[in-house]
Amino acid sequence: MSNKILAVNAGSSSIKFKLYLMPEEELLISGEAENIGQSTSQIAYTINKKRQSESLPLTDHASAIENIIQILENSGIIKEKAEITGVGHRISHGGNYYTQAVQVDADVEAKIDELKVLSPLHNPNGLAGIKAFEKFLPQALEVVSFDTSFHQTLPEKAFVYALPYEYYEKYHIRKYGFHGQSHYYVSQEARRLFGLENTRKIISCHLGNGSSITAIRDGHSINTSMGFTPLAGVVMGTRSGDIDPEILPYLEETLNLDSHQIRDILNTQSGLYGISGISNDVRQIQTAATQGNQRAQLALTIFTHSIQQYIGAYATDLNGLDTLIFTAGIGEHSATVREMICRQLGYLGVQIDPDKNAHDELVISRPDSPVKVAVIPTNEELVIARDVMKFINN
Amino acid sequence: MSNKILAVNAGSSSIKFKLYLMPEEELLISGEAENIGQSTSQIAYTINKKRQSESLPLTDHASAIENIIQILENSGIIKEKAEITGVGHRISHGGNYYTQAVQVDADVEAKIDELKVLSPLHNPNGLAGIKAFEKFLPQALEVVSFDTSFHQTLPEKAFVYALPYEYYEKYHIRKYGFHGQSHYYVSQEARRLFGLENTRKIISCHLGNGSSITAIRDGHSINTSMGFTPLAGVVMGTRSGDIDPEILPYLEETLNLDSHQIRDILNTQSGLYGISGISNDVRQIQTAATQGNQRAQLALTIFTHSIQQYIGAYATDLNGLDTLIFTAGIGEHSATVREMICRQLGYLGVQIDPDKNAHDELVISRPDSPVKVAVIPTNEELVIARDVMKFINN
Repeated sequence: MSNKILAVNAGSSSIKFKLYLMPEEELLISGEAENIGQSTSQIAYTINKKRQSESLPLTDHASAIENIIQILENSGIIKEKAEITGVGHRISHGGNYYTQAVQVDADVEAKIDELKVLSPLHNPNGLAGIKAFEKFLPQALEVVSFDTSFHQTLPEKAFVYALPYEYYEKYHIRKYGFHGQSHYYVSQEARRLFGLENTRKIISCHLGNGSSITAIRDGHSINTSMGFTPLAGVVMGTRSGDIDPEILPYLEETLNLDSHQIRDILNTQSGLYGISGISNDVRQIQTAATQGNQRAQLALTIFTHSIQQYIGAYATDLNGLDTLIFTAGIGEHSATVREMICRQLGYLGVQIDPDKNAHDELVISRPDSPVKVAVIPTNEELVIARDVMKFINN
Repeated sequence: MSNKILAVNAGSSSIKFKLYLMPEEELLISGEAENIGQSTSQIAYTINKKRQSESLPLTDHASAIENIIQILENSGIIKEKAEITGVGHRISHGGNYYTQAVQVDADVEAKIDELKVLSPLHNPNGLAGIKAFEKFLPQALEVVSFDTSFHQTLPEKAFVYALPYEYYEKYHIRKYGFHGQSHYYVSQEARRLFGLENTRKIISCHLGNGSSITAIRDGHSINTSMGFTPLAGVVMGTRSGDIDPEILPYLEETLNLDSHQIRDILNTQSGLYGISGISNDVRQIQTAATQGNQRAQLALTIFTHSIQQYIGAYATDLNGLDTLIFTAGIGEHSATVREMICRQLGYLGVQIDPDKNAHDELVISRPDSPVKVAVIPTNEELVIARDVMKFINN
């Protein structure tokens, strides 16, 4: 029997949603409530590739969710609320508790709340979303899917920092990793596409507003570039990625900043934006670089270099490489970035076809390339909908 | 004509020295003033492999240097002070100013002083040493050799952090790199040993109390693991190496620590010591691991993993690898560490001979290994003495 399953991804001022007919995996509607709590709040949605938007007051996450459900009814996608048999929530941080998705109960809600110390921006919004659906769709089964779960297979050597060990034991400071649904989804797609023997050693590059690189051995994450938080790893739109940790106290003392200001600078004023001084958007930076803007060119070069470094590092975790995957906004759409990254990877057996790369084709490696290189559109919401189905079928 | 050249390396409470007959490169005496400013102060020295030590009050760097010169005279190594025609000083930080060694003048002293903001522990001691020799050996030519100079060939993509660009322009926050004399020395030795064609792509691993990895292309440093300060990079004896930068404000806020305390924890309570809880010394950790201490084993595993990650990353900078070098205390003497590192590098063409490795032989790779692997004792003081000779010959 088919089910209509809603996948929900609540951010600080937005809620993305997709309604699927499952197990057919047919997308019925996708949309986003934006600028929640602001005068410009709206809900935009797409049905049958037709995009619409409605400006309407969304005071908080609960009111946004109430209006999203209303739109599902008004548009005729559902006749009544009860048709939605399951809701899946993307939750940023599952700590050490969750190695896979779980059905919501009081204990799960308490743990998501407890973990807000590790994810102060995202977990509270996720929890608000869960509670809103309990109110507005009380009959639906609720499941949470964690960004961190896929990376719970990391070995200790990859997740324990070289800090006093009690920081890990007492304060749970370790590498968690994020973008788990995305890395899982694209690696599964690659395994289907190329066969299990050609995908034993995968490196997947999720390159979007946030970016992370993951080493995947026989389907399991064994290393990933984000860390305790999503600040670590490669250079991102406005995030610094890895820097010498000593820079933080140096800035605090030299510029007389406090830890909150430092955190804000590293998260929102750095990365591509900080280097280029013009934008956090790779498209704008590429355009400026083409027009001769040297700082824009430098931003691109530093960004792609930082990704190369992780690909090289993770080849040691895998002792080689079978398949390299690019996904998410930049990974799926920037041929320039992919080309710049692959330029230094010849020694690993990465050989891309410039023409296939220029057209964002699914497979961009040359037929004789020892390493397969694929551009795979990610679909985190589908992973979430599938996670919900595991509980519906039970 | 031969010259007696003194190479000096001043730390916070110690001064290491070696007197060479140049250009023959014959070591006449090597020694160290230790525990300067403490009641246990002494000078230990070795002549013709015979080691002696004298306990004597060393109130500061100047008095230590006066006593070192006295020992050179008393031991008969020199008959009079004037025989020492040149003194070379190891200085930690040359900033962006110095791409090679320079003769000391008022401007050089001013710049070393200015750069103490970037090297608060080391540059002031180095400068104190320079001034003491001006006083006690006024006729000797003084030259400074910087830890950072060898890395001034790094490309921008490797040394600019993804921070607001003005931090680089205004505050000179960039990757500098350290251990320059050591990486230079061992890479030159390898080029002589294996020939230029087999050493176009070198990765050198300086593994000691502090550790750093450097990528060397045709003799030039193109990337290195230490950063703005010597805290960054691989796991070290008591230093954390790279961590998610967000951990610092998290610790400040959660444990109510200030930036000075955080800096102290990351520099002196972390690394091998922090993980193992028993020691910062690899020998003691290896022993404990052999006896079944799991945290000691974990410390070794995390340490060697962090080095593997950099070797892999730097293979992308070099687009491959010709020669891998191990040097410094751990690199020269721990077969276990070398074996653990090379275990995951088969894909790069690294194949070591377990027997040669166990005996710390000069070349530990198998004859058919595509990558040469060498264990080369470092000699930073000889690099410094050679630097001095460049000015004496002029």
